Amino acid sequence: MEPIETFRKDFPILSQRVNGYPLVYFDNAATTQKPRQVIDALSNFFLSSNANVHRGLHELSNRATELLEESRQKIAHFIHAQGPEEIVFTKGTTESLNLVASSLGSLLKPAEGILLTEMEHHSNLIPWQQLAKQRGLRLFYLPIKDKEGGLQMEKLEEIFTHNRIAVFSFTHVSNTLGVINPVESLCSIARKHGVISVVDAAQSAGHRLIDVQKIGCDFLAFSGHKMCGPTGIGVLYGKKEWLEKIPPYQFGGNMVLEADFSDSRWKDPPHKFEAGTLPIAEAIGLKAAIDYLCQIGLDKIALHDEQIGSYAYSKISSLPCIIPLGPKGRRAGIVSFSIKGLHPHDFISFCDRYGIALRGGHHCNKPLLSKLGIDSTVRASFYFYNTQNEVDQFMEIAEKCLRFFKLPCN
Amino acid sequence: MEPIETFRKDFPILSQRVNGYPLVYFDNAATTQKPRQVIDALSNFFLSSNANVHRGLHELSNRATELLEESRQKIAHFIHAQGPEEIVFTKGTTESLNLVASSLGSLLKPAEGILLTEMEHHSNLIPWQQLAKQRGLRLFYLPIKDKEGGLQMEKLEEIFTHNRIAVFSFTHVSNTLGVINPVESLCSIARKHGVISVVDAAQSAGHRLIDVQKIGCDFLAFSGHKMCGPTGIGVLYGKKEWLEKIPPYQFGGNMVLEADFSDSRWKDPPHKFEAGTLPIAEAIGLKAAIDYLCQIGLDKIALHDEQIGSYAYSKISSLPCIIPLGPKGRRAGIVSFSIKGLHPHDFISFCDRYGIALRGGHHCNKPLLSKLGIDSTVRASFYFYNTQNEVDQFMEIAEKCLRFFKLPCN
Repeated sequence: MEPIETFRKDFPILSQRVNGYPLVYFDNAATTQKPRQVIDALSNFFLSSNANVHRGLHELSNRATELLEESRQKIAHFIHAQGPEEIVFTKGTTESLNLVASSLGSLLKPAEGILLTEMEHHSNLIPWQQLAKQRGLRLFYLPIKDKEGGLQMEKLEEIFTHNRIAVFSFTHVSNTLGVINPVESLCSIARKHGVISVVDAAQSAGHRLIDVQKIGCDFLAFSGHKMCGPTGIGVLYGKKEWLEKIPPYQFGGNMVLEADFSDSRWKDPPHKFEAGTLPIAEAIGLKAAIDYLCQIGLDKIALHDEQIGSYAYSKISSLPCIIPLGPKGRRAGIVSFSIKGLHPHDFISFCDRYGIALRGGHHCNKPLLSKLGIDSTVRASFYFYNTQNEVDQFMEIAEKCLRFFKLPCN
Repeated sequence: MEPIETFRKDFPILSQRVNGYPLVYFDNAATTQKPRQVIDALSNFFLSSNANVHRGLHELSNRATELLEESRQKIAHFIHAQGPEEIVFTKGTTESLNLVASSLGSLLKPAEGILLTEMEHHSNLIPWQQLAKQRGLRLFYLPIKDKEGGLQMEKLEEIFTHNRIAVFSFTHVSNTLGVINPVESLCSIARKHGVISVVDAAQSAGHRLIDVQKIGCDFLAFSGHKMCGPTGIGVLYGKKEWLEKIPPYQFGGNMVLEADFSDSRWKDPPHKFEAGTLPIAEAIGLKAAIDYLCQIGLDKIALHDEQIGSYAYSKISSLPCIIPLGPKGRRAGIVSFSIKGLHPHDFISFCDRYGIALRGGHHCNKPLLSKLGIDSTVRASFYFYNTQNEVDQFMEIAEKCLRFFKLPCN
């Protein structure tokens, strides 16, 4: 892998000082930073090609349409979809998952079941939970083993065999535990039981290779802003046959084939799901992000994520008073922990004074943390531009913090 | 008003040549161009302050949160809302209207009625139409008088008196006819009958002063990209009591107060409606757009819109073969027409060869055009950076086009 510094230089924000110290940005699971290439793609679009798409007959509109559809093509290629018609633009993972829960959900029959895992982010839990409440569906959770977060895989067959499960929706990478779930096995077992699979790839897209055909999922959702792209853009991948079968989610311009005062008919997917003006510039920015990431190499990014994640985990775990979460072995670049005798917020505010950006709270994982008996954690999350040296700086500050608060265990 | 050229210089895209001719951008009802100030606001955010908001405890996240909430404040002030809690960020007008139709719609009782007008854009027609179908509600349309597009105001009291109408949703400015509807009267009559009012301000926000308190509406929706802001951002204004009463639309992070595996409770508005990561940069870009527009003055922009709209309407109407739509009198900066013996697409493609950007089609107004017996129109739509001189250039090309196609009427 090229030395990490080669890529860091593309991120102007990373060279700033925060509170007098060089910024150490460890909040990548919340949102990643953007390379100059992505920022320029956005600006250039607005400076030279901005227009609304599709229905235009003029040069700018044609240019904007071409750029937008190039982005769709690129995304299809990036996740190994069968074609661009399987790519729906949304505003983010949350909307993608709400779309599936609402549209696919409308086809489910009362008393059918939905299976989630105990580690789902609110965005992949609450849409299904509320759907179940409204429609009289049954909701199941595949449990985790312990605070390391591995799924109780042996329970999966059992749940599928004894319950009428229609949909299994689960995360690829846990945003709190850093667990990497065995998505291929999960989808393959679901498929064997005729269960539709939905993958939340918010924390894995842009961090590791995503091949929807190899994964074997029916739907997959991710966001642009967590993979070097702009805010305001996300993707829902759906198998063509599913996108054809499920009804639209929002209604408006661009998705209508025929309309009169009393009824309407829809265009084919993906347009059926794209009511209103799309986040055009943002889609073009996402393409620039994908180009950028592919130039580095997704395998290299995944390896770096895992290495820095494991390094940080082992360092942090060695500190007194620290209770780490998530797997001791292979993990994503996300490390969460709580501290005996210190509230995460105090730890994070202390680190912020030294330029270290961490996140604290329940990370939209309230039910999971309740189960683990924790209220909130500190989370450090990494991307390819983070260095081992930054982790070492963080460790120095962490130790300083424990000393400052005179923790009994220290 | 300062000479229009003063503002034009802020729009780098407007100085480009298209097909060898200076660009004449008359497609503003589809999307407006962006001044350098807005493009810079987006870039600067990503270059220096990018982070996820609200749940952060570090410097960048605090900065991003402050910028986002400043934008909300600014928008509240811009439309004279009672406070920022009445401002919900969405991805655009279409989503805002779908949100109201879905959330407010869930409170309506079977056999209650929804009133629209015959000139609604698909985005303010189809969400209500499909809601009515699904929930057994009744759908009514306030008719237009003729192809000038004025509403049959005398029918309004009648409809309200004889039917159990719960919601009246209508556009402020028609995107095809250029009609400016008397929003204050419409809302006041609705209020008298205890009917909830929803205003589609997609074509009026950023074009004229919007004062939701003076208008007296319960909800109002608009998009950033039609008023110099970025794509991917829109607003739903809702009276506080209504936002408190209606249920959330999407579920996920940021909108949850409490959640366990079986149920959840929501934060107060506006956060209740803002599941997932917001279009943060886009909201900040929208603030820059509002700052920019306010510096020019909304009254001045409205006057310029009306003047250039009327000028273009009278010039175009004077051509043989042209059948203009919309009011002969006061109108917005939107002029639609059809041409006897020539398809709009041929006219628009001809004009494009001379750098003139027009839009053709049904403008997401299929039911309206069917009623008028028209399949599609040419639409020229203006903004403050368009000049009378551009309209004159357009007229020259229009005449050249009619001669080129040897129209019998010429």
